[in-house]
Amino acid sequence: MEEFNILNLLIILAGAWVGGAAAKRMGYPAILGELVIGIILGPALLGVLETSEMISVLAEVGIILLMVYIGMEINFRDLGKASWPGLLAAIGGFIVPFALGYYTIIYFGGTQMAAVFVAIAVGVTSLATKSRILVDLKLLNTRIAYVLMAGALISDTLALIIFAGMMSFVDAGNIDTLGIIWVAGKAILFFILTALAGIYLLPLLGKALSRAKIKDRTLHFTLILIIVFGFAELAELAGLHSILGAFMAGLFIRDGVFNRQISKEINDIFHDVSIGFLAPIFFVSAGFNVTLDIFQTDLLMLIAVTLVAMVGKIGGTALFYLPSGYGWREGITVGTGMNGRGAVEIIIAGIGLEMGIISPEIFSILVFMAIFTTLTVPVFLTWTTKWLKKRGELIHQESRKGFLILGANPLGIYLAKHLQEQDEVTIVDANRDMVEIAKREGLDCVMGNILKEETMEQAGAIDKGSFLALTANSEINLLAAQLANNSFYIPKKIVLMDPKESGAGVDMLDRIDASSMFATKTKLEPWSYKISQRQVQEVEEEIEEEMSTRQWIKQQKQDEKEILPLLIVNPEGRKRPFHFHDTISPGEKIIYLR
Amino acid sequence: MEEFNILNLLIILAGAWVGGAAAKRMGYPAILGELVIGIILGPALLGVLETSEMISVLAEVGIILLMVYIGMEINFRDLGKASWPGLLAAIGGFIVPFALGYYTIIYFGGTQMAAVFVAIAVGVTSLATKSRILVDLKLLNTRIAYVLMAGALISDTLALIIFAGMMSFVDAGNIDTLGIIWVAGKAILFFILTALAGIYLLPLLGKALSRAKIKDRTLHFTLILIIVFGFAELAELAGLHSILGAFMAGLFIRDGVFNRQISKEINDIFHDVSIGFLAPIFFVSAGFNVTLDIFQTDLLMLIAVTLVAMVGKIGGTALFYLPSGYGWREGITVGTGMNGRGAVEIIIAGIGLEMGIISPEIFSILVFMAIFTTLTVPVFLTWTTKWLKKRGELIHQESRKGFLILGANPLGIYLAKHLQEQDEVTIVDANRDMVEIAKREGLDCVMGNILKEETMEQAGAIDKGSFLALTANSEINLLAAQLANNSFYIPKKIVLMDPKESGAGVDMLDRIDASSMFATKTKLEPWSYKISQRQVQEVEEEIEEEMSTRQWIKQQKQDEKEILPLLIVNPEGRKRPFHFHDTISPGEKIIYLR
Repeated sequence: MEEFNILNLLIILAGAWVGGAAAKRMGYPAILGELVIGIILGPALLGVLETSEMISVLAEVGIILLMVYIGMEINFRDLGKASWPGLLAAIGGFIVPFALGYYTIIYFGGTQMAAVFVAIAVGVTSLATKSRILVDLKLLNTRIAYVLMAGALISDTLALIIFAGMMSFVDAGNIDTLGIIWVAGKAILFFILTALAGIYLLPLLGKALSRAKIKDRTLHFTLILIIVFGFAELAELAGLHSILGAFMAGLFIRDGVFNRQISKEINDIFHDVSIGFLAPIFFVSAGFNVTLDIFQTDLLMLIAVTLVAMVGKIGGTALFYLPSGYGWREGITVGTGMNGRGAVEIIIAGIGLEMGIISPEIFSILVFMAIFTTLTVPVFLTWTTKWLKKRGELIHQESRKGFLILGANPLGIYLAKHLQEQDEVTIVDANRDMVEIAKREGLDCVMGNILKEETMEQAGAIDKGSFLALTANSEINLLAAQLANNSFYIPKKIVLMDPKESGAGVDMLDRIDASSMFATKTKLEPWSYKISQRQVQEVEEEIEEEMSTRQWIKQQKQDEKEILPLLIVNPEGRKRPFHFHDTISPGEKIIYLR
Repeated sequence: MEEFNILNLLIILAGAWVGGAAAKRMGYPAILGELVIGIILGPALLGVLETSEMISVLAEVGIILLMVYIGMEINFRDLGKASWPGLLAAIGGFIVPFALGYYTIIYFGGTQMAAVFVAIAVGVTSLATKSRILVDLKLLNTRIAYVLMAGALISDTLALIIFAGMMSFVDAGNIDTLGIIWVAGKAILFFILTALAGIYLLPLLGKALSRAKIKDRTLHFTLILIIVFGFAELAELAGLHSILGAFMAGLFIRDGVFNRQISKEINDIFHDVSIGFLAPIFFVSAGFNVTLDIFQTDLLMLIAVTLVAMVGKIGGTALFYLPSGYGWREGITVGTGMNGRGAVEIIIAGIGLEMGIISPEIFSILVFMAIFTTLTVPVFLTWTTKWLKKRGELIHQESRKGFLILGANPLGIYLAKHLQEQDEVTIVDANRDMVEIAKREGLDCVMGNILKEETMEQAGAIDKGSFLALTANSEINLLAAQLANNSFYIPKKIVLMDPKESGAGVDMLDRIDASSMFATKTKLEPWSYKISQRQVQEVEEEIEEEMSTRQWIKQQKQDEKEILPLLIVNPEGRKRPFHFHDTISPGEKIIYLR
């Protein structure tokens, strides 16, 4: 264990944290900072650190766990729903740079294998800046974000499949037809076997565990690791790389296989241990293998690969996007959003380097290409979205649509009718009469106890984008929002909080990332009564300057008690519930009751 | 990365899981199964696996994370409260086997260093079988369990301090006085520095994070890892072993340093990643270094060390326990409970082997000693506790005492008065009048919203052993029990559940390991009214045969509605609330209202 150097580990972790935090602060993904720190600390510049057996073992475990996590984050149904435009963007954004990248390397005299590696690397898309930049640019609910997410997922999957195909042939060399069939057959067998195991055996295991009432998270974690390493070993037996096994395992360890709560906790552990501990070791140490000499010896190739990666990605995406009918401007915007390269690219490049398929120079070029392309994303995407916005071509769309409303009281029904104009709305209530009334109003309404997972499932919670808890009991609202968050991952939770002094407070909303309905504590009964007696008047008010919902409430101070802000309507007519933690932009209207 | 062998990792993990699960099923700690699997799979028997660089790197990270977790589990205040008997047991159970172990090795011609290593190894105590066996033997609330826990913690701390002292001198060899002062000074400086950093710097960091409203668990995890490896590096600089740094870091990363919720989640991650993934790699691979030849070549030494470990531990504990005044029988019982050796012993033995201080033969002897002594624990402890029980000398005592009751309603006050006879009781209510009434009844009562951490803190939740939520609102009860569980780790949560159909159901109690008060859904108001009007009669009923609380309720079927089972009184007169998931033993009485 002489190899085990704590100081190196400490420097890497601290460096990764500093680099990652700095990158994030500048709006970039942490991986960018980690790569740069690796280049700075490694032989290329300061020479403080270099690769060691310890680092490579931990890095290897890190990328395996990271691939499991990446697999876990891909939802089959999302891929299925990805629709035409996402598929077009993904394919165009992959094939065009792939082809260009391949011929660039051949042009520079590289081997065919190296050319394929580089081709995959430039073809890959990373949504590294994912949520952060989409949130910063307020794109989360646009069609672009939707296409971007789907496109990146499809592109990652494509890249890994082609990578798998290539890996089968790496060791094979020059072989006859029978050999090719054998090699390809093994790889296909791997995918069939893991898919079958994932689809049929894993749910059986999950059911066995739940039948035995085993809820021990640690045990689940160990079993899942055994599955992960089992799949990884299968991949190696099939002549593929272990990360493909880890990725397949991650794909199938998901919704419905294990207890929802435990699944989420295990997902969190994979996230924290890979992204917070072991994967940064890989990315920092990737920087150790970079040489700066390429800026003198291979500058032309660096420029060529980077240009090909950018032009190919953006142009290819825009070109293939045309048949979607959403216009070339949106295509270019999507292309700029997909221009980043990240974890998967660096992992594939690292494997190529380790196997001796690509030279240290090409590896360095690929790392800098990843850095440069990622640097462009926020800049380019800001330009292109501003451009679209100015032209009024920024289309809104949610990845998880529809509302789940708890409480078929008059207020719940009133809101549901508004929101139903544009989206699917399902109401849940435990009271049969209330449910009947809601149904008579033409609303989709489920009778049941919302605090039971069965009821949530019946109401289609897993597909809903927003959860509104509108009962008079703040604690039921909060517990329901917890369930919506922990077991159904509903992204938006809006909770009606009663103004009573004891009981659940708004501080409890933070823990589940929920916000309060009407942006202020509100008593349900008086408004429900007024609505049912038709004693309310609906008013629309257009906002002149940007302000938070809380600020708007404060402006109405004098008659705060007498009005209830229901909805915000954007210029395109889309309505969203008025809640805390929201900003109203100029040109948006507020619908309130008085 | 040729060294990275997924198949070996898979076999180790699967083997560890099978061995661990089998051991647990037989009532033994998982580590026992892991060691045995290691011996079976390793060179000693099947020869399927052997040590590799990959395994030793992962094992090393595993023991570092495990030491952090062990440190996290030690509560300073528990150590402070450990009291006289725990301290006596720990010291006696350490010093006597330590001395005997030392002389045994010297007698067999070992070096002084090897003798000290073995001495520490036989001195260590493992509460490996901790909760499981104490639960199985229904000892959790006895004075023995209390002394055992405290004794094991103190003994671990003692062993690590002596280990630290020894480590300082390992490299030093024969040195002059000045050298000794330098070596000892460095070690002492390490403890002072880490303690100061732990006491002053960590809380500052925690406050800075909470002031910046940073609640990102992954970031906290990364920062804590940096602290852990920083402390580990400090330990190495001071000439100590890195595990001591990890242990010190774990000691100080606890209650109140970071946000409570995040602390708990991070604690869970360390638990799962060490115990569910990396630490088993260490214990299985420890088995790889074992040789079975000792049964021929060194059988006498094996028998001697094992005997010395057992007799020294049990006898030493009993001997030093005498001044406690609790009798030699209880001393022997405590000794049999502390007879196991576990993680810390194997870790120390592994370090000794790796540094060449002890031979593979002595290492093997220490592994078998750990296995044999651990095997005795459930057997001996069953005998000794039966013996104590038969003599009526099994004394009940809780490690976390006292009740926190939510709800100063008549029923809450009624229960509080009963429970107050033996334990500290604090009531919390948000209603000023109710609080006044409770205070007038001579009860300790805090006014505040129980769903705020401040209120819980004010009511001393962190010291309480049981939490009773008795408001009429099941959801508030449940949310409060969540908080009591997640942020204040109160071991026993008993929640009054309203019989209404919608809202929180009893299935939600499982997730926080709570049970329902009165073992059946109960409406609060009628009973509160009857109690306040003195329309109830208190009845005591003695139980003839063992039954669950649920069975007792079913027996009363005909007039279930008219009676309310409040408390169970054991033969010594100790009262506990009547709740689901409890068993009533013959000779215990039930106090119920009608």
